[in-house]
Amino acid sequence: MGGDFGMDATIPACCKFLEEYPNVKLVLVGDRSQILHKFGPQLDRYNSLELIHAPECVDMQDEPRSALRKKKQSSMRVAIDILAQHKVNAVISSGNTGALMLTAYHLLGTIEGVERAAIAKILPSMSGEGVCMLDLGANLEATPNQLFQFGIMGAQLMRCVYNVDSIIGLLNIGSESIKGHEYIKNAAELFKQYPNCNFYGNVEGNDINTGIVNVVVCDGFTGNVTLKTMEGIAHMINKIVTSEFKRNLLSKAIGILAYPVINCIKRRLDARQYNGAMFLGLNNVVVKSHGSTDYIGFYHAMEVAYKEARHDVITSIKEKLSAKKNI
Amino acid sequence: MGGDFGMDATIPACCKFLEEYPNVKLVLVGDRSQILHKFGPQLDRYNSLELIHAPECVDMQDEPRSALRKKKQSSMRVAIDILAQHKVNAVISSGNTGALMLTAYHLLGTIEGVERAAIAKILPSMSGEGVCMLDLGANLEATPNQLFQFGIMGAQLMRCVYNVDSIIGLLNIGSESIKGHEYIKNAAELFKQYPNCNFYGNVEGNDINTGIVNVVVCDGFTGNVTLKTMEGIAHMINKIVTSEFKRNLLSKAIGILAYPVINCIKRRLDARQYNGAMFLGLNNVVVKSHGSTDYIGFYHAMEVAYKEARHDVITSIKEKLSAKKNI
Repeated sequence: MGGDFGMDATIPACCKFLEEYPNVKLVLVGDRSQILHKFGPQLDRYNSLELIHAPECVDMQDEPRSALRKKKQSSMRVAIDILAQHKVNAVISSGNTGALMLTAYHLLGTIEGVERAAIAKILPSMSGEGVCMLDLGANLEATPNQLFQFGIMGAQLMRCVYNVDSIIGLLNIGSESIKGHEYIKNAAELFKQYPNCNFYGNVEGNDINTGIVNVVVCDGFTGNVTLKTMEGIAHMINKIVTSEFKRNLLSKAIGILAYPVINCIKRRLDARQYNGAMFLGLNNVVVKSHGSTDYIGFYHAMEVAYKEARHDVITSIKEKLSAKKNI
Repeated sequence: MGGDFGMDATIPACCKFLEEYPNVKLVLVGDRSQILHKFGPQLDRYNSLELIHAPECVDMQDEPRSALRKKKQSSMRVAIDILAQHKVNAVISSGNTGALMLTAYHLLGTIEGVERAAIAKILPSMSGEGVCMLDLGANLEATPNQLFQFGIMGAQLMRCVYNVDSIIGLLNIGSESIKGHEYIKNAAELFKQYPNCNFYGNVEGNDINTGIVNVVVCDGFTGNVTLKTMEGIAHMINKIVTSEFKRNLLSKAIGILAYPVINCIKRRLDARQYNGAMFLGLNNVVVKSHGSTDYIGFYHAMEVAYKEARHDVITSIKEKLSAKKNI
């Protein structure tokens, strides 16, 4: 029910998902009559689809705490309830991020040994394999051990889902180990002491998307500002490109000729394909879709959740962290 | 003498500058014989040019402290010495940033009432007027009062140099005033209490370049990571555009046709025109040029320094901050 477009984004995304992944069962949680009124005939075509009624809805204005306490019949809450009961393997929502995070924390808990969950996303990289960046805003601050755990979680994700060797970098203001905050230097020490962990060292903002590392670790404040800065710059460049191709008749004509190439570029830069932020470190798979995305973006968030659940990232994190304890 | 290209960037930039601003006098500080050997005949053409010999050079590997203590005959040190003696109005360097900052701090001091100097840059914005962002790395952390002062300094810069009404935003992870670190919330209070200061409130990473504010304030860690992230994303997009236009014969042909438009886009995104980081808050004008830029970039850094000195930003900051004291 969430996000700027509500069912108009989520339900077409579900239909697309079932076309692509016919063996996956989907459970829609929301206002039954609203859903059936608008999408009934469309949904009838799918067998592997269940509908669970939830009469309430968490609004964007709801305080996370009050959503958790008072809206026990909300679609968000009911979805996380059935996840906690192991009736489903993953929850995807485009609703209120704070409420989703708090509710998930409260009802699901963190993986044994994990101090704090982190918001993680796979971002584009020049090497093409993508880079997992975390924390993107779950924790304003992070201790050295929390940063260390974020790195291990991100590395396990990349290994399990993308089958790549993980190389972990700590986001900092210089490559030298003397640079930056004390808690970052201390986190670097934890990585260095830990065996079987491919730690690159510090990376800077301009290294994130180069592919020299495929896991970038930072506190949630820095991660959130950085992620949004990326979105802002990409948006500005897109605007500049569009305005230059629309400047005059000649440039418009060139724009029509260049359309296939421009289209390829836009497709490669399309933020929707990178949609889907994982709440990594929780005991179950919870993925947040950007509130303003359309059905294509929501579909990609569903794929992110599917892959995290399918490759059992949580068990792999659990094993890795308990192995650490036994050193 | 500094930067990746040394005199090959700085001296052609000086020549270009003297063509554009024939009434400005330039003083070159560096190894006299090296300069004259390579650029003697070229420099002979300009009357408003003086050469001061400095036998030493601060290297990129030099520790700032040791550069300050031991290299008293370095071009960087001699340049700042003559600035402190009011023989020149501004210094531009593309050398070791840490050494430049420390030497400038030590020899010039800060404007009365200014707690800490900040690194400030004018970045592109969609509104076209540019946005002043600070601190970009002079201070790892900042107190509420320091953030407040950064905002006032940035606002005075925009007012004096660009003749625009300044609107100040605090970089944060949400627009609501309850978001973010305590020191940011406390800085917001200082801005709100201060009369005659156009404070917008919090801005997020994706707001920096939109033009909703023209001064963005943050601590040096966040600012440095953010600035470098912008550079990284712009670089990645540039790579993607180039690779798509080179994908096959057809796209190459389209690329040739679209060249005038692509060229306009590249010119608008050319990082060199935004080169030149001001050490705002010092008693004199010191501008750092990016070490890897060419003569065009260094020329723009010279323009930044010229404008800051020409419009006497320092006096305006001094007056604004002493007015605050008298409230």
